[in-house]
Amino acid sequence: MDEMLELGKQILAMQPFSVLIGAELTGFSEGHTELKIPIRPELRQQHGFVHGGVISYAADNALTYVGGSVLGPSVVTSEFKINYLRPVLGDFIVARASVIHAGKNQAVCRCDVYAASEGKESLCATAQGTIKKIGQSPQPQA
Amino acid sequence: MDEMLELGKQILAMQPFSVLIGAELTGFSEGHTELKIPIRPELRQQHGFVHGGVISYAADNALTYVGGSVLGPSVVTSEFKINYLRPVLGDFIVARASVIHAGKNQAVCRCDVYAASEGKESLCATAQGTIKKIGQSPQPQA
Amino acid sequence: MDEMLELGKQILAMQPFSVLIGAELTGFSEGHTELKIPIRPELRQQHGFVHGGVISYAADNALTYVGGSVLGPSVVTSEFKINYLRPVLGDFIVARASVIHAGKNQAVCRCDVYAASEGKESLCATAQGTIKKIGQSPQPQA
Amino acid sequence: MDEMLELGKQILAMQPFSVLIGAELTGFSEGHTELKIPIRPELRQQHGFVHGGVISYAADNALTYVGGSVLGPSVVTSEFKINYLRPVLGDFIVARASVIHAGKNQAVCRCDVYAASEGKESLCATAQGTIKKIGQSPQPQA
Repeated sequence: MDEMLELGKQILAMQPFSVLIGAELTGFSEGHTELKIPIRPELRQQHGFVHGGVISYAADNALTYVGGSVLGPSVVTSEFKINYLRPVLGDFIVARASVIHAGKNQAVCRCDVYAASEGKESLCATAQGTIKKIGQSPQPQA
Repeated sequence: MDEMLELGKQILAMQPFSVLIGAELTGFSEGHTELKIPIRPELRQQHGFVHGGVISYAADNALTYVGGSVLGPSVVTSEFKINYLRPVLGDFIVARASVIHAGKNQAVCRCDVYAASEGKESLCATAQGTIKKIGQSPQPQA
Repeated sequence: MDEMLELGKQILAMQPFSVLIGAELTGFSEGHTELKIPIRPELRQQHGFVHGGVISYAADNALTYVGGSVLGPSVVTSEFKINYLRPVLGDFIVARASVIHAGKNQAVCRCDVYAASEGKESLCATAQGTIKKIGQSPQPQA
Repeated sequence: MDEMLELGKQILAMQPFSVLIGAELTGFSEGHTELKIPIRPELRQQHGFVHGGVISYAADNALTYVGGSVLGPSVVTSEFKINYLRPVLGDFIVARASVIHAGKNQAVCRCDVYAASEGKESLCATAQGTIKKIGQSPQPQA
């Protein structure tokens, strides 16, 4: 399990956008994932709340990871749906994803995103989506 | 219309996360929005493609803007759903959103996201969501 | 609670489409709903499985009921998303919905739909949606 | 094309649930589908409007058909999302679906559902979903 988390962290470190966001993988086991993002000024919208795009990134990436935890490393998010529940402030956000149903080629997963402030968490968004195996790592064109 | 676009650009400039992403508002009129994001290395995932979180940010923000174009400035994205259609490479992505149906308090909107490479566009994601009026700009807590 | 379930059953009996489907309300309390549909030949598609439209009806209606359990009787489903997980056969389907987050005017709810066969249940679909209060019961036009 | 429509109608006639609903296939060509449902009392909810489950059935089935128009006959709806836009009254509903993007194994499709009254149509719901090829027609268990 620790090896799996280490591998997951290495992949996250290879995602420049995840590094830009400042995401940290804090849990990664078969069927479960936890992604944490410390809240800093750069992640806000005009009213001072965390931008919805940060929340949807967290859900999307946690969903992809959890799908990969059962389907293998070559996966993409095929689609997802997210409901925002409340404006987000606090110290960090944490996205927890789990697998609802896994077939051979795709998995349907769920993700709850929480805002944590002074040790207290509140649910701020919930997402559901499909993660799909890809035949092989697609090669970016030069 | 130019005034509306100017106002929209000012609001975007006040969103630190949109500045971090490097998003530009290139169209903003009643019922239509266009948001452009130049692709740069920081926006990628581990295979060299644009990270899905950038695509979902683009869809989410374009949807919020287009909802605001008919409901007024105090709006939030209540929920949305996105289907990713192909891996994204190229020079920039452009999200075009339109209003499908607007009521007094909410609007259902659609957004197509294109990847542009050497002057040629290809559809890379499509989204549908609900934008909701909020009573007043919520105040972030100290 | 029994009164609440009775009221819920009376409302269901006033929905001609629910009567046509043969739906039964088997649970209705604050934040939770259970809707059961005996499987009969009329509910099938061409391969002998229960038609997806029956599953989505079950999810939609269970979501509306559970939203109404916290928002009051004048509610509609504003939107929902459903993932089908496996083909459905068996004796009956049962949809169980719960409230994830309720505000003053809308609630975000979730629904799992199970197929039951010889006393064994298996998850066959999962849905997530928004239930919205309506100002008053809208009057159908003559 | 007429042959294709005829084939589509034969398949619809083999879906007992579609017969129960009273659905008619009025258009079926590569990338486009039209499904019509005459409104009758049995399709209503308690306020006299067409039940949401009828609308979602229409969207779901039109999406499956349009996916099948490009992927072949062995397809299922993998997932979809629907936004209801207004209460539905009138003479019939008509669902028009089109393909947004088709790959080898799945297609992302869109469906607009209209209510028609005295020759005038109004958009009442919009849906987006994924249609997936299945390896072979699954066999219902005895």
